[in-house]
Amino acid sequence: MTDPDLLFPPDPRTREVARILFAHAKDLPIISPHGHVDPWLLADDRAFGDPAQLLIVPDHYVTRLLYSQGVDMDALGVTRRDGAPVQTDGRAIWRLLAEHWSVFRATPSRLWLELTLAEVFDIHTPLSVGTADAIYDALAERLAADAFRPRALFERFGIEVLATTESATDDLAAHAKLAADGWSGRVVTTFRPDDVVDPEWEGWGTRLDRLGEMTGEDTLTYRGYLAAVQARRDAFRAAGARSTDHGHPTARTLELDHAEASRLYARLRRAPNPEDAETFRAHMLFEFARMSTEDGLVMQLHPGAVRNHNEHLHRVYGRDVGGDIPQAGEYTHALRPVLERFGHDRRLRLVLYTLDETTFSRELAPLAGGYPSVFLGAPWWFLDSPDGLRRFREAATDTAGFANTAGFVDDTRAFCSIPVRHQVARRVDAAYLARLVVEGRLGLDDAAETIADLAYHLPRRNFATLAERNQASSVRLED
Amino acid sequence: MTDPDLLFPPDPRTREVARILFAHAKDLPIISPHGHVDPWLLADDRAFGDPAQLLIVPDHYVTRLLYSQGVDMDALGVTRRDGAPVQTDGRAIWRLLAEHWSVFRATPSRLWLELTLAEVFDIHTPLSVGTADAIYDALAERLAADAFRPRALFERFGIEVLATTESATDDLAAHAKLAADGWSGRVVTTFRPDDVVDPEWEGWGTRLDRLGEMTGEDTLTYRGYLAAVQARRDAFRAAGARSTDHGHPTARTLELDHAEASRLYARLRRAPNPEDAETFRAHMLFEFARMSTEDGLVMQLHPGAVRNHNEHLHRVYGRDVGGDIPQAGEYTHALRPVLERFGHDRRLRLVLYTLDETTFSRELAPLAGGYPSVFLGAPWWFLDSPDGLRRFREAATDTAGFANTAGFVDDTRAFCSIPVRHQVARRVDAAYLARLVVEGRLGLDDAAETIADLAYHLPRRNFATLAERNQASSVRLED
Amino acid sequence: MTDPDLLFPPDPRTREVARILFAHAKDLPIISPHGHVDPWLLADDRAFGDPAQLLIVPDHYVTRLLYSQGVDMDALGVTRRDGAPVQTDGRAIWRLLAEHWSVFRATPSRLWLELTLAEVFDIHTPLSVGTADAIYDALAERLAADAFRPRALFERFGIEVLATTESATDDLAAHAKLAADGWSGRVVTTFRPDDVVDPEWEGWGTRLDRLGEMTGEDTLTYRGYLAAVQARRDAFRAAGARSTDHGHPTARTLELDHAEASRLYARLRRAPNPEDAETFRAHMLFEFARMSTEDGLVMQLHPGAVRNHNEHLHRVYGRDVGGDIPQAGEYTHALRPVLERFGHDRRLRLVLYTLDETTFSRELAPLAGGYPSVFLGAPWWFLDSPDGLRRFREAATDTAGFANTAGFVDDTRAFCSIPVRHQVARRVDAAYLARLVVEGRLGLDDAAETIADLAYHLPRRNFATLAERNQASSVRLED
Repeated sequence: MTDPDLLFPPDPRTREVARILFAHAKDLPIISPHGHVDPWLLADDRAFGDPAQLLIVPDHYVTRLLYSQGVDMDALGVTRRDGAPVQTDGRAIWRLLAEHWSVFRATPSRLWLELTLAEVFDIHTPLSVGTADAIYDALAERLAADAFRPRALFERFGIEVLATTESATDDLAAHAKLAADGWSGRVVTTFRPDDVVDPEWEGWGTRLDRLGEMTGEDTLTYRGYLAAVQARRDAFRAAGARSTDHGHPTARTLELDHAEASRLYARLRRAPNPEDAETFRAHMLFEFARMSTEDGLVMQLHPGAVRNHNEHLHRVYGRDVGGDIPQAGEYTHALRPVLERFGHDRRLRLVLYTLDETTFSRELAPLAGGYPSVFLGAPWWFLDSPDGLRRFREAATDTAGFANTAGFVDDTRAFCSIPVRHQVARRVDAAYLARLVVEGRLGLDDAAETIADLAYHLPRRNFATLAERNQASSVRLED
Repeated sequence: MTDPDLLFPPDPRTREVARILFAHAKDLPIISPHGHVDPWLLADDRAFGDPAQLLIVPDHYVTRLLYSQGVDMDALGVTRRDGAPVQTDGRAIWRLLAEHWSVFRATPSRLWLELTLAEVFDIHTPLSVGTADAIYDALAERLAADAFRPRALFERFGIEVLATTESATDDLAAHAKLAADGWSGRVVTTFRPDDVVDPEWEGWGTRLDRLGEMTGEDTLTYRGYLAAVQARRDAFRAAGARSTDHGHPTARTLELDHAEASRLYARLRRAPNPEDAETFRAHMLFEFARMSTEDGLVMQLHPGAVRNHNEHLHRVYGRDVGGDIPQAGEYTHALRPVLERFGHDRRLRLVLYTLDETTFSRELAPLAGGYPSVFLGAPWWFLDSPDGLRRFREAATDTAGFANTAGFVDDTRAFCSIPVRHQVARRVDAAYLARLVVEGRLGLDDAAETIADLAYHLPRRNFATLAERNQASSVRLED
Repeated sequence: MTDPDLLFPPDPRTREVARILFAHAKDLPIISPHGHVDPWLLADDRAFGDPAQLLIVPDHYVTRLLYSQGVDMDALGVTRRDGAPVQTDGRAIWRLLAEHWSVFRATPSRLWLELTLAEVFDIHTPLSVGTADAIYDALAERLAADAFRPRALFERFGIEVLATTESATDDLAAHAKLAADGWSGRVVTTFRPDDVVDPEWEGWGTRLDRLGEMTGEDTLTYRGYLAAVQARRDAFRAAGARSTDHGHPTARTLELDHAEASRLYARLRRAPNPEDAETFRAHMLFEFARMSTEDGLVMQLHPGAVRNHNEHLHRVYGRDVGGDIPQAGEYTHALRPVLERFGHDRRLRLVLYTLDETTFSRELAPLAGGYPSVFLGAPWWFLDSPDGLRRFREAATDTAGFANTAGFVDDTRAFCSIPVRHQVARRVDAAYLARLVVEGRLGLDDAAETIADLAYHLPRRNFATLAERNQASSVRLED
């Protein structure tokens, strides 16, 4: 059984308060307003495949750490671009993890995996070379059962709403199937236009052609491109989307007038170059902010990853396999154009994320605590560990308070880990709030209300649709 | 009554040590060597106005957080530039704060306000919509009494010296009145020349004309400008000033020779441009360091705020209403010109502040621990919260020790909060030192001496006048 | 006697776990894979000089802090470049330290010195003006005894291997003498080529001439220069070197082709300029990475110090006397050229250090956790204090785990402080791991294995020679 005091502070009195606070949050429904679960999982509701394909192969947190210790990606079953064979025996891959399990000590990946085994799969044996096979067999057995199909788990996890993320050119067929099925689980999409916005992303032109076909717009012109983008936003909104998501190298924004933007677009359509590409991305962030004020989609910005930094991994295995590295962040100057124009406009909800935790106290908390349109997103990626979550609260709360944070986001593609990630976040918040209580900075009643806000009410409010927002009169939306 | 263990660490033994240490500091007189209290408060000694005008309207920490949650500045009574009417009913403003009080949970503003109500006004009812009126009435009643006039509070607060901050063109009439009155409270001014140094500050030319009139110098020439600035320094020094203060966008310094500086000044007088303006500000920091070596005024540098970032707030309400946002800081290269020339010169006392806490361990502690002329200022603005104060000690002490820090500065315009801000700083230092004691890194006797240094002796020494410094033979000035 | 709980967390249960963990590490042999002890100390094995010359004068951590408080370097006995007389009376220097001892409260220098007095010299009297002479006398008496000669201490300290650091043009005579002597202590050199790589270092040309003489290569040509550098690497390797060390202003790397590099070298040989110099240093880091893949020397990179920032100290006393200041670090872009080419190559072991702790979570842990060739070095210089060591673990472990860190490095020139520095690091790791255990994040057995890895097995493995590495089959080298 999971240690009931997991992640709580050592001091007995603080621990006692943390227990009390966690009890207020642990059974609240899960709002997962941003993540990367494949919607076909839930649309098809087929049984999951082998344990390694579920828990190891697609999780770049796990594969990158093994790779950093000299394990070949081939041996981990990561698909090669050239189609050459890689390990497909799930048991062999699972054993490889077990062999290197000590590498994961004190990492969030280990914490999540152990909690997932224990709480989702009721497997409590510690992983080791000696136990790997037995655990693998137990997992495989569970996964074959109906109670472990995606929709059954979704319900068991207490997920109130789950947002997936789709490219602008996705046909949203999975979400259409989900809607047609009459299943009660709420799965919505998120509009992620990066691959039609970033001229440096291989295949941009081809995708723009596709975008034109989907929308009937002439994407050879900037005017047609904008209309096509707006049309896709509308389609996503109709499919339940509450937000957009933008994964740019930097947070830079820029307003170009229509003529300038048209010329820039035409140049890029002919032949992209890095400088024009950065200008175009910056301008499009401005346009997306404008669109958000009009259609009410929450705008999420995830800047700061240098994509495909590991040239070897990119060449052999492609994108999103663990080869991205963060760079220093800058928001104060980068966002000024957007904020000068829309910062005071409460129709905009701009949720800012970072890979550079120095920006929490220096830029993001001041921006979130200074503009009605800005919200501070949850710690992301390299920062979503217990210590990262704690440092986020310590760095941001003084200046932004709680109400200017957007609520926890699991941002995961690992469906089975969703409840444990939320549990970890709720435990860390309980620990943080308990310290405030014991240090006399917050009353116990206020803290209890706050933990429920952080776990449930804030994400529910901040990722509400425009219609829901217009109805809501207070921080806590009526249930 | 205030929790006697407020802000102390949860562990019982550490908490006990924190209590012992705090007892050594809590009743020491207050040295407030830098802040923004209006000197006319004390010169006139009139009763304060309504509670909202005292505690809410002028406090941009409070108004910005309410504004970030969608409250109109008009409704908070913040004066508009266009003179249009805003809320003037203090009670209505006070109720608005009470309504949004949950937004302030865990922020320093809430801590200061609760402590101020409790310790200054003997009001212990928690603020809520239900109690707002009663608290407002109690406050209004207290504020009408003689015991709550500024001078009475000054004495009750145990303030040994309070520095206000005035523009170079201020006539210092308030300080003249204070001196003429024969009142025993020591209120001194601080020379803040930003608005005659920054060519990008609207109205620069007009203020330079005024500077010329005040000093009889020809401020159309650089030579006359320098002489006028020096004349104002002399006047400030005569009025008791111990320091200057410089609030530049960056810490950049630069030495120009007289001919270059004259040409630059002439160009700027004709038509300022951003590049020349930054060069001029950098050069003037160099000149101010030189002047400080000659006239003994401590030089304070507060760089890193992007002023008027919120265009809406600036346009409608003007400066200093919560629309400034920090940017990344850099000191190592920026200060090199000044330190190459004056870094070894012990007549200079350069106190460095920052809005970017990454610079504490990386640049500021090494500079303060490496130059006899450099001192590390207290955590400033967004960083003066309990967690900010703690992180400052943890980041800076290893490299700078305590003796190279300048001592606590409240930097506030909220007169009534001065004792509680000093109390909070003393409590956080007690908590930090207690941990060192319990971890075996510092003896209890040393810790007791240190907390008194931090609270009283260091600021007293570091902001001493040249005359006092020349007399002092040790860290602890003779009383 | 040293507090057995020194540096352990206050909470009793966590403290108990820390004690248990520390017991697993405290008696492990010392691996000191990088430092600046003078090899002649051990080659000659003469008794140390007076206590001040041993413990104060050469320690720039100590002298800079005294200097920052207004103490003259002359009075501290620091040698002047102009040969003018400075204080040579060790007792007078020692008294000066005692007089200013309060300045060192809570600094690592004080901790190390007190521990050194207690554990190495069995002196337990607290230092003060009153006890300075008695302590000085006791030290002088000890130092005269055979048991306090360098080799005797080396053995008593339990040092398994000690790496010194020599310039590329060093003749390695000390190491030759050590090898010839038949003494069992293992003292190896480290190849530090900065003074023949950095064209901005005064005397570069002269040293290149010397390099040519030593190797028989024509260092007027780039080809000859490269060959000479490789020849010196070979000589260092033959003398036991396991690693190289590079102390560049930035981490910038760059690949030039042979023709470009030749032209650049020729230009620099004629007349260095800052831009060419930075390009050349960047290119040479690339070349050193290539060489490391071939000869197996571990490559250490120490970027980010602005050398000789204090112009006064540099002019009067020369290099390495406390006048260096850190600047902001950047690795993600800077290292990309090297990592694109060699990042996937497991023959390379690149150990990265930093003076900018913001890079731990943002760049260095992702790089170490994402490339098989990259390891994260121990906290360095301004960051090697108890709080710095703790923050390093908290910032880096989530993303890099433990296995991608290189192990503790004392990096000291203070021979007598080596065991206490390792003790401090082991205690801080025990405290960190104990928290993980009590918070339920790591089992006690795993934690016990981990602390032994951090203290001994990791540095042993990561700084192993190529031959040793080829034999090793697991994290733990066979003993």
